Amino acid sequence: MALPIFTERKQMSESIKQKLTAKHIEQFRQIVGNEYVLADEESLHHYGHDETEILNYPPEVVIKPRTAEEISAVMKICNEGLIPVTPRGAGTGLSGGALPHLGGVLLSTERMNTILHIDERNLQVTTEPGVITEVLMDAVKEKGLFYPPDPSSRGSCFIGGNIAENSGGPKAVKYGVVRDYVMNLQMVLPDGEIIWTGANVRKNSTGYNLTQLVVGSEGTLGIVTKIVLKLIPLPKYDLLMLVPFKQLEQAGQAVSAIFNAGFIPSAMELVEIDALKIVSKMVDSSAIPITDDTAAHLIIEVDGNNIEVLMQEMEAIGNLLTQYNIGEIYFADDAQQKAELWKLRRRVAEAVKIAGYTIEEDTVVPRAELPALIRGVKQLGEQYNYHAVCYGHAGDGNLHIRIKKEGVQNSLDDPAMIESLRAMFELVHKLGGTISGEHGIGLIQKGYLDIVFNKTQLRLMKEIKRSFDPNNILNAGKIFDLN
Amino acid sequence: MALPIFTERKQMSESIKQKLTAKHIEQFRQIVGNEYVLADEESLHHYGHDETEILNYPPEVVIKPRTAEEISAVMKICNEGLIPVTPRGAGTGLSGGALPHLGGVLLSTERMNTILHIDERNLQVTTEPGVITEVLMDAVKEKGLFYPPDPSSRGSCFIGGNIAENSGGPKAVKYGVVRDYVMNLQMVLPDGEIIWTGANVRKNSTGYNLTQLVVGSEGTLGIVTKIVLKLIPLPKYDLLMLVPFKQLEQAGQAVSAIFNAGFIPSAMELVEIDALKIVSKMVDSSAIPITDDTAAHLIIEVDGNNIEVLMQEMEAIGNLLTQYNIGEIYFADDAQQKAELWKLRRRVAEAVKIAGYTIEEDTVVPRAELPALIRGVKQLGEQYNYHAVCYGHAGDGNLHIRIKKEGVQNSLDDPAMIESLRAMFELVHKLGGTISGEHGIGLIQKGYLDIVFNKTQLRLMKEIKRSFDPNNILNAGKIFDLN
Repeated sequence: MALPIFTERKQMSESIKQKLTAKHIEQFRQIVGNEYVLADEESLHHYGHDETEILNYPPEVVIKPRTAEEISAVMKICNEGLIPVTPRGAGTGLSGGALPHLGGVLLSTERMNTILHIDERNLQVTTEPGVITEVLMDAVKEKGLFYPPDPSSRGSCFIGGNIAENSGGPKAVKYGVVRDYVMNLQMVLPDGEIIWTGANVRKNSTGYNLTQLVVGSEGTLGIVTKIVLKLIPLPKYDLLMLVPFKQLEQAGQAVSAIFNAGFIPSAMELVEIDALKIVSKMVDSSAIPITDDTAAHLIIEVDGNNIEVLMQEMEAIGNLLTQYNIGEIYFADDAQQKAELWKLRRRVAEAVKIAGYTIEEDTVVPRAELPALIRGVKQLGEQYNYHAVCYGHAGDGNLHIRIKKEGVQNSLDDPAMIESLRAMFELVHKLGGTISGEHGIGLIQKGYLDIVFNKTQLRLMKEIKRSFDPNNILNAGKIFDLN
Repeated sequence: MALPIFTERKQMSESIKQKLTAKHIEQFRQIVGNEYVLADEESLHHYGHDETEILNYPPEVVIKPRTAEEISAVMKICNEGLIPVTPRGAGTGLSGGALPHLGGVLLSTERMNTILHIDERNLQVTTEPGVITEVLMDAVKEKGLFYPPDPSSRGSCFIGGNIAENSGGPKAVKYGVVRDYVMNLQMVLPDGEIIWTGANVRKNSTGYNLTQLVVGSEGTLGIVTKIVLKLIPLPKYDLLMLVPFKQLEQAGQAVSAIFNAGFIPSAMELVEIDALKIVSKMVDSSAIPITDDTAAHLIIEVDGNNIEVLMQEMEAIGNLLTQYNIGEIYFADDAQQKAELWKLRRRVAEAVKIAGYTIEEDTVVPRAELPALIRGVKQLGEQYNYHAVCYGHAGDGNLHIRIKKEGVQNSLDDPAMIESLRAMFELVHKLGGTISGEHGIGLIQKGYLDIVFNKTQLRLMKEIKRSFDPNNILNAGKIFDLN
């Protein structure tokens, strides 16, 4: 692995920058309107970063189109001029997918923020990509419908970004991830052509599945401009409990035991003690007990239409868990207590980041390998001299890990840090897992992709990229370098 | 559309046949063993057809490998010699995907029939492709686990074929189709390389989704040799009812109404009266009432772990349906009555085929468009002088249509028949649907693909095909012609 990758990237950026001219910018102004083409320093700085670490790569120009047709016109110019284009949703990504590291055009979808049609007859919604995920969830909820995938950033992230990264969230364990809800996508190809990837149907065996190829492709194959999502009836009730475990590994074992007993919780989250302590300083959680002998919490939610059945399920799960070394189970009694508990869970990442822990890793393993993964990560911490905190979507085997190493500021270019992350990802691979469950590879994980894919797998992906984007102008250098 | 496509195909087949020599066959014998290379006329005839109409294209040689490594060695020879290879599961396909229409090698996966590992800790199963779907379902059922996708042919089809076609079946309405359960695939590429497409995890945002690209690609991108499927806990109970509707369109409307009221049945099948009459002659269905004023039956199943809740659900659905013009609802009381009812449903296709109806079309539309589709199909029948019967997975908007036209024997090359099918598919497309929900395009639907895909969409698919199979030796001419 050549190092440091980020320095290299900056050099490449310099050489490419010559391609964008004042004439191009004038053309962009004509297409989308003067006020939606920004080149002032403040804007370039703002759109130069996302939620990924401390990176900032200002683009040369920011464009905010309103329609697929405008994007098409912009893309035709960029394709001809070989100008790099980086599509961006809300900029909440954690893998650097929206960073314009090659300069060029930053194309923001923020003005494409209309929910076009909630189709109650067919349980579908058609939306533009710049709608905030929670706004979409609330809008369909008003009609008694449910769009389940809810990443922690749901209050600020865009549905378009969720498509790009194939996002998950706590509900994935029962309801699946974003890709399970995407039926059809309208997208602008790098050459400006506008296509649909499929049809608005629940079953489809007609040609190759372009829809599923685009979901999770991190904005490298096209710019998604309309999204058709499947909806389901909204469950009427949910119940939430928190179970303190005295041994971290037992929490991992309990996760498998619950599924093997026939239960499918609608959420099954793990937060280990170090993360809990950090977040409880930030969020008032006096109602939620954290005793000295707690090693981890499992947050378990069940949902459905029959409250009595849910109460029976909760009781049965509680009984099942008495075989482990657990503390007193805390049941969230009302909406406010539930909201508090979820707030605690959702703010873990932010709290741990503020406490000086770097990058949120996004490891995923077969569910029952969770204890082995947690054990291994802690052992690697001793070996490589870092401290790790773990939390995440235990029901899916999707464990977020943040690490802290004394004296390391910029973890991305630190050779010792890179070495220790490689060791962690090699462990994940050995356990049958992979390096990203819901964040994507983007810019900052691509140096590790060789751990999970060999040359042939990468060759196939690169050829697919070339089929869609022969000039390599769209979000180039994300996931992998083409050459 | 050039006609007749099947005559053309035969001519092409002749010109390609020169490529396979006695020397190649000798090499194949050394790789897989003498007894697993067949070239006698009876075998060639047998492997020359599947369940698609009356077509028969004998291959030049049949090979029955046991391992991925044997397939790899065979593929290397074929790739170098430009010898066409057609992979085949159980030969139950309905779109001609396993027909060796270019001659060459027919590669049967029938000896790769071992369930390798039922992983009860992770709720996964790893299997070879030649396992019969029902055998797999029963094996995991014994462990209290559930693999839901169950095509009508589940008693004879192979799981590998189900992957190739992205099969569905009655349970899809609640549990999804094959692609929703595929986590990872081992496959042999046309050049003989063996790769895995992903990882054995429930969430994955690591690189392009090769797994989902391969599911439903009809054996054109590689030969699947190992399959890792997600499993879920087996629901303890199910209840089944049959509702006779006096108006076909109301049956379609009722389907949407049930979902919109918040129910998610585990099956929701439609059989219209003409199909019912035909199948009831073949299967003893004296227990199941078909009155003179019945226009269609809806078969509705609910499943779950709480029998009382299920009974309440059935009652509520029954009450909801009283707003329509229905006959007496029939509840299947025990396992035998359920089996009878399902047998009736599963044998519809066979019965209608025997009655002289041709090809089973596999249209799919947004669920609420079902009444419009049924109405339109009947109108087209009057216009084009054919009789159509409809049945299928109403909950998914997936309607099977078989048509009968006096005087037409070979519907595939009959210009009038082709014209009427084009009109039907154009209607489906106009309603927001597409031409295959679960059968695939294969050989016999590819002439209609231009209705739902434009040149750009097809270009992308063809370039993906070229990335995997630059010499176009693997199931060439299925889905689309490359050149």
